[in-house]
Amino acid sequence: MGTWLEQQFSKRSQGIPPSFIREILKVTSSPDVISFAGGLPNPAFFPIEAFKVSTQRVLEIEGKKALQYSVTEGDPDLRAWIAAYYQQKFGMEVKPDEILITSGSQQALDLVGKLFIEQDDKVLMEKPTYLGAIQCLSQYQPTWAEVALEADGVDIAALEQVCVQDKPKMMYAIPNYQNPSGACYGEEKRAQVARILNENKVILLEDDPYGELNFTGALHTPLRKLYKEGTLLMGSFSKIVAPGLRLGWIVGEKEVIAKLTILKQASDLHSNYFSQRMLLDYLIHNPITEHIGKITAHYKAQCEWMQECIQKYFPKEVTYIAPEGGMFLWLDLGKINARALLKQCMEEDKVVFVPGDPFYITAEAGMDKARLNFSNGTKEKIQEGISKIGKRLHDML
Amino acid sequence: MGTWLEQQFSKRSQGIPPSFIREILKVTSSPDVISFAGGLPNPAFFPIEAFKVSTQRVLEIEGKKALQYSVTEGDPDLRAWIAAYYQQKFGMEVKPDEILITSGSQQALDLVGKLFIEQDDKVLMEKPTYLGAIQCLSQYQPTWAEVALEADGVDIAALEQVCVQDKPKMMYAIPNYQNPSGACYGEEKRAQVARILNENKVILLEDDPYGELNFTGALHTPLRKLYKEGTLLMGSFSKIVAPGLRLGWIVGEKEVIAKLTILKQASDLHSNYFSQRMLLDYLIHNPITEHIGKITAHYKAQCEWMQECIQKYFPKEVTYIAPEGGMFLWLDLGKINARALLKQCMEEDKVVFVPGDPFYITAEAGMDKARLNFSNGTKEKIQEGISKIGKRLHDML
Repeated sequence: MGTWLEQQFSKRSQGIPPSFIREILKVTSSPDVISFAGGLPNPAFFPIEAFKVSTQRVLEIEGKKALQYSVTEGDPDLRAWIAAYYQQKFGMEVKPDEILITSGSQQALDLVGKLFIEQDDKVLMEKPTYLGAIQCLSQYQPTWAEVALEADGVDIAALEQVCVQDKPKMMYAIPNYQNPSGACYGEEKRAQVARILNENKVILLEDDPYGELNFTGALHTPLRKLYKEGTLLMGSFSKIVAPGLRLGWIVGEKEVIAKLTILKQASDLHSNYFSQRMLLDYLIHNPITEHIGKITAHYKAQCEWMQECIQKYFPKEVTYIAPEGGMFLWLDLGKINARALLKQCMEEDKVVFVPGDPFYITAEAGMDKARLNFSNGTKEKIQEGISKIGKRLHDML
Repeated sequence: MGTWLEQQFSKRSQGIPPSFIREILKVTSSPDVISFAGGLPNPAFFPIEAFKVSTQRVLEIEGKKALQYSVTEGDPDLRAWIAAYYQQKFGMEVKPDEILITSGSQQALDLVGKLFIEQDDKVLMEKPTYLGAIQCLSQYQPTWAEVALEADGVDIAALEQVCVQDKPKMMYAIPNYQNPSGACYGEEKRAQVARILNENKVILLEDDPYGELNFTGALHTPLRKLYKEGTLLMGSFSKIVAPGLRLGWIVGEKEVIAKLTILKQASDLHSNYFSQRMLLDYLIHNPITEHIGKITAHYKAQCEWMQECIQKYFPKEVTYIAPEGGMFLWLDLGKINARALLKQCMEEDKVVFVPGDPFYITAEAGMDKARLNFSNGTKEKIQEGISKIGKRLHDML
């Protein structure tokens, strides 16, 4: 039963599923491995030269302030920038005191779990869903409900039924280019989801790390705009600037943000302030829309190339829905078991991806699914990796 | 009873005492206020010029890696640096896999609470203790026990009694230059504390943010060296380099660190990786011992100057024990109520400090105590502030 210390571990710490991605990243750090496994942004677009300028400017002009302790809420100027972004892009009014800066959106998830989830509270998840959200919210020992995800969002009839029958306290959703499925909610479904959650007084945790990685230019209304009172909207600089800074945010009603701020203060006082100021300086002095345009054009090309390769090398039994944004392509492997496929690809070909099952709450679900990342890699590596997976798929059929 | 959303707040979130320091910091941001309230390092010693070099070097040589997602455990080279520091300074063997990099030691506190504390577990605190620890651990809904602190550490007889009678699961202690009292455990007491905690199998959470701010040169053995199995030792770069980077660490047995790592992954994936690499570059290229020497010499002079001013301006009824390190001077105000004194000083003189009561778990305790910070301020401001407090003290007697 482990050491004396291990016997002291809390129940909450024992219910957390191990992260499959964490395990697989140990394999993928080797340079001869072709990895479609991680959710890594392409480092070619990290604004290294601009950061050289911003770090110098911040240290020169305000080093003493930027390196000191700061307020838990986050830098007021950065919060104002985020508020202006929502106003400009969506015509959505967000006040700075409705924003809390967090250490990545993962921390926002954790703080929301801390604030709202009691043991055995029912939490409703998309099926499949982001495995980091399952892992994070598991700490607060909820029970789960699920609602199936279609290409244009959740199954509305199923959502209505689960809300009425199971009375979940909270729903977690990624409406834009979902991880892992790539699904993006249509405008009609957004309105319906907002209506159903509002009628049933279900808190919505709207996670939006991928919304800017939009291949079509279509505008997707934030659910917070449609269901303001009950929605907590999470955003992140990880996919549009750089993840190593661990900076994200959460938007909510000001009394909720005030309470989340107290919890954040107890958790880590505040997020890295030097990086907040350096990021703000970067955002002020560089055209972020243009930068996002470059990232998105590249990811779109990579995504299209991966689909070309799949069409060339994969058997017809393997299907997918073409993503309209984001970083992931979600495969339906039909009769093939994803874990068995991964084992062969990893051991024989040094090609890795994430099998579907970690993205499901129910055991045994998703064994016929696989997630491929297309943002981080070259055309050559994508072709080589897809052709090798394709050969294994043909052999296994 | 608040809004619909407020009624959904978890019980754990309601037991967190508001931070007095947080409230007072709003007042002290005004430049005409003389503040002895914060626990702020002196920004004159932030290595701004060295950071200009380190940020450029990291961005130039390894920008793509430093700005990408990284491992939850923290940078391996930074962990090795910390391990070598303990070996060199204390002859204490620490392996890198016994170290987890955290977002300040506040996060280490939070993760330890998550890992070990179930509702109603007994947690033993020094009396008085760091209010951020009370705030943080309150999230996990423990019951409290206390043991009185003397100038050379906890009352040993009281510790033995409370360990046997109350059987606490964990003790939280700051053995070096404690916040708020300035107390520093003697070597003899360290051995006794280690023996008692070991005999009673009480987990020790040893917080050491101030150990390097040592005015006497005396070596203070870490309790982890004396009670390795049961001690989790927290350290921080906030007081010796810069707090705005939010980088600290925790040392523990490897099975505990492994589990804390899973909890940290669920909480924020990893700490700011760019800042980890920039800090490591700084530590490699600059003589940190010399830097700490400069900080310590300055704080010692400020501390001595504050004492001179106190002797000159305060009535004899107000007493304190001269600190041998750290950042705080702890006053015993005798018959004077600290909150009443603060009200006058703040409103009439624009001079602020922290009254004693937030550092106590028991309501009404510490009303005759006050904490003065001496690290951040000039000689002139110290003299002006102390003379103004002195005048109020004389008036109130």
